[in-house]
Amino acid sequence: MRHDPRSGCAINAAVEALGDQWSLIVLRDVIFGGRRHFRDLLANSEEGIASNILSSRLKSLVAGGLLTHEEAERGRRGTYSLTEAGIQTVPIMVALGSWGLRHRPTTPELSVRARLLEEGGPPLWEDLMDELREAHLNIPRPNPGRPRASRLLQDAYEERKNAVAPTEVV
Amino acid sequence: MRHDPRSGCAINAAVEALGDQWSLIVLRDVIFGGRRHFRDLLANSEEGIASNILSSRLKSLVAGGLLTHEEAERGRRGTYSLTEAGIQTVPIMVALGSWGLRHRPTTPELSVRARLLEEGGPPLWEDLMDELREAHLNIPRPNPGRPRASRLLQDAYEERKNAVAPTEVV
Repeated sequence: MRHDPRSGCAINAAVEALGDQWSLIVLRDVIFGGRRHFRDLLANSEEGIASNILSSRLKSLVAGGLLTHEEAERGRRGTYSLTEAGIQTVPIMVALGSWGLRHRPTTPELSVRARLLEEGGPPLWEDLMDELREAHLNIPRPNPGRPRASRLLQDAYEERKNAVAPTEVV
Repeated sequence: MRHDPRSGCAINAAVEALGDQWSLIVLRDVIFGGRRHFRDLLANSEEGIASNILSSRLKSLVAGGLLTHEEAERGRRGTYSLTEAGIQTVPIMVALGSWGLRHRPTTPELSVRARLLEEGGPPLWEDLMDELREAHLNIPRPNPGRPRASRLLQDAYEERKNAVAPTEVV
């Protein structure tokens, strides 16, 4: 399925490999949402991805070498894992998030992670990638004593969500 | 034409605004190739973009606030300019190029700029963005004495191209 890119340009090669908008969004949910099953990716999609689109994008991410798919036994759910190439899209996600924060309408609870990642810079992205390598590739974190990047991001998200929610509850 | 994104997520907002693969490629050619006219973008496309696709993507980049289009007099060519939001896609381009270099086949002359941008880091990206602001927004460069980022990138490209070309010429 993987074919040679249309040109030898590194940007074009990346753009072709990462595919369309939905592929990036699915990859984002695997990386930042820790979602590794079809049902989970479908049910929790903030953007309401359609089942057939999710299915086709997962296939193309696997074909492109960004995800692997471990088939489960009959009746059980298969698991998607990031490859090293998939994990290394973290800096692309950060750059996209930083741009979106500045130039598009966003909500506090869904953008707090983009802001933290920008502020944390490359050391925080490396921590996150090390954590993803542990979760998806079984490679132990080189600095297990460091706080988990995912925890930092998740706590900030929950905090913003709770700060925003009361107006809706009341 | 610009509508609210499907969710308040900063990454999603960026992905929706930057659109599909061809939009990013057109933006890349305006940023790194200095191409500001339809004919130039069409004739020099490394990926062989089709005329109707180029036309539609230019329209959507203008609608999305990444480019502006100055109509020319009858029979003359209009000029496209980057907006500040368009200029600030430089770090996204760099992140895409760095990933493409590592994970996809590329050619030396078309990837040398991605390599230099990665090595130069944020100070080089800022220089390039200042230069783009001068060329597209008429904002003088804050440090006119600094060497031009575009010259550094173009020289490296020409050098690689000439280093590669002889085998074809002979």
